[in-house]
Amino acid sequence: MSILKVAIQGERGSFSEEAAVKLFPENAQIFGYQQFEDVFRSVLEGVTDTCLIPIENSLAGSIHRNYDLLLRHKLKISREIYLRIEHNLIACPGVVLEDVRQVLSHPVALDQCHLFFEKYPHLERKVSHDTSGSVRQIMERHSFNSGAIAGRRAAQLYGAAILKEGIEDNKKNFTRFVLMTREMQVEAAANKTSVVFSFQNVPGALFKSLSVFALRDIDLTKIESRPIHGRPWEYLFYVDFLGRVDEGRVQNALNHLQEITDFFEVLGCYPGDESIEKKRI
Amino acid sequence: MSILKVAIQGERGSFSEEAAVKLFPENAQIFGYQQFEDVFRSVLEGVTDTCLIPIENSLAGSIHRNYDLLLRHKLKISREIYLRIEHNLIACPGVVLEDVRQVLSHPVALDQCHLFFEKYPHLERKVSHDTSGSVRQIMERHSFNSGAIAGRRAAQLYGAAILKEGIEDNKKNFTRFVLMTREMQVEAAANKTSVVFSFQNVPGALFKSLSVFALRDIDLTKIESRPIHGRPWEYLFYVDFLGRVDEGRVQNALNHLQEITDFFEVLGCYPGDESIEKKRI
Repeated sequence: MSILKVAIQGERGSFSEEAAVKLFPENAQIFGYQQFEDVFRSVLEGVTDTCLIPIENSLAGSIHRNYDLLLRHKLKISREIYLRIEHNLIACPGVVLEDVRQVLSHPVALDQCHLFFEKYPHLERKVSHDTSGSVRQIMERHSFNSGAIAGRRAAQLYGAAILKEGIEDNKKNFTRFVLMTREMQVEAAANKTSVVFSFQNVPGALFKSLSVFALRDIDLTKIESRPIHGRPWEYLFYVDFLGRVDEGRVQNALNHLQEITDFFEVLGCYPGDESIEKKRI
Repeated sequence: MSILKVAIQGERGSFSEEAAVKLFPENAQIFGYQQFEDVFRSVLEGVTDTCLIPIENSLAGSIHRNYDLLLRHKLKISREIYLRIEHNLIACPGVVLEDVRQVLSHPVALDQCHLFFEKYPHLERKVSHDTSGSVRQIMERHSFNSGAIAGRRAAQLYGAAILKEGIEDNKKNFTRFVLMTREMQVEAAANKTSVVFSFQNVPGALFKSLSVFALRDIDLTKIESRPIHGRPWEYLFYVDFLGRVDEGRVQNALNHLQEITDFFEVLGCYPGDESIEKKRI
C-alpha cells in the first residue's frame, strides 16, 4: 500500500490529525505545520500529496481564513469528512482541578466551553495557537497550576491526565474537513460540488446567481460570503450544491452562472460525507 | 449636553474607542470590557446606555461572534459607522526594530500584517486579546525585545514609540461598527434595515427568501450565514437592505418573508454611514 503524505495545521494530537487518521486509517504519513499558509504551500510545492483543512464547525461556523487560502492557492477539494469535537480539561498527572488557575487553548475551543468557565470563574483563559500544542506546553513546563483544553488524543499522546471530559457547551459539535489536492479529481462517488464567484455591482445579482440553481432544482447546502480584498464591501460567494460537474443540468446552471458573474471557479467535485445529513437551503 | 455611557470591547486606545470618539466627539463616557459578552450585558443591565460593536471588516470579513451575541441579547442597531484601520509596529521608547524579537497583537491584526512578517521572518507572532492591550503590556514590562501592533491612538496613550507606521498589507482596511441600544429607535434619517431569519428544511428556501426583496426592487448590501446551535448544518441568515421598516414595500417584503421563515426578527432600522459606498448585492 502506498503511503500518502498528508499536511495538516497543528501539532500531533490535534483534531486535524484525528480527522486524517479517520480518513486514512493505515496509509497516511502526517506532516504538521503551525500556519495554514504553510500547509497549503507544502502541497503546492510537492512536499506533501494532499492536505486536510477544517473549513466549517457546526457551532463556530466557517473557518473563513481557509476559504481565502483555498482560493488563493488554487487547490481542489477531493473529499470531505465530518469529525465530532469533544473538549476536555487536561493537566499534568497529579494536578487536581482545585490547583488549576489558568487554562490554555485555541480561542474557538475556549469559546465552546463557555458554561464550564461560568461554573469556574476563577479560571483565567489564555489563548494559544492550537489545542494539542497547549497540552504539550503545560507538560513541557510541568505546570502544576495550568490546564489545557484539547481532544482526548492530545492527552494520550503527551501522557497528560484528563481532569474533566466533555466540557464543551454543546454536544452537537462537528467540524467539516476538506481534503485538497493539486489537480481536480472527480471520483466515481462524487455527488457534491463547490464553486466560488463574484459579480458586478448589479442590483439583485445574488438573487439572480441563486436562481441558476433554483430554476434547475439543484439543492444548495451552504453559502458563505467573503470580502474581496481591495474592493471594500464587495463579496465573493462560496456555494456548495448537490450535483456533479458532468451532469447536464449542472453544466447548464454553471454556464448560466457565468453570464452573471465577473469571476467564477469550480473548487471541486467530491463525495459528500453522509454520516450526518447536511440540510438543504 | 447629557453624557452618554458607551460600552466597548477592549482597552483605552483601541479601534473601538477611536470609533466611539468619532461618533460622539464630545459627549461620550467610554466603558471598556475585556469580553464582548460583558459589553452586551452592561447595556442590558443599564450600567451603560449603548454599546459600539465591530461587526465587519472589509478584509477579515464579519466578526461572527458578534452576530451571535447581537441576536442572543436582543439589542437593536441604531447607528453604523465605518473606521479606517491603520496598523503600526509599536515599542517602548528607545527600542529599535533590530531589537524586536516578538510581536504581540490581536490575531486579526497579526494576519493583516502578513507581508510585514514575511519581510522580517525572525519576528515571532504572539496572539493577545486586543491591540491596545498589547501596547500596555510591553510598556508595563519595559520590554526591550517585544513590539505590539496597534493603532496610533494606543501608542500616544501609553507613551510608546511607533517604529513603523502603516504596516497593514492592504490600505483599504475599514471596520464597520454598529451602535446598539435596548429599544428599537428609528431615526428620521434611517435608510437601512437589518433582519435575521431561518427557515424550515425546504429546497430553495434561501432563493425564495431573497426573492421577497428582489421582487420589490429592494437592494441588499450584505448577507451573512451563521450556524444554528443544536441543529448542525442549519443556518441563520442575517441580511442588510436599503429601506425603512415603515415603507409599504418593505412591510410587504417582510410579511412575505415570514411566510417562508420559521424564525424572523428585525435587528434595527438606522441611518447608513455613507462615507464609503456599501455596494449592492
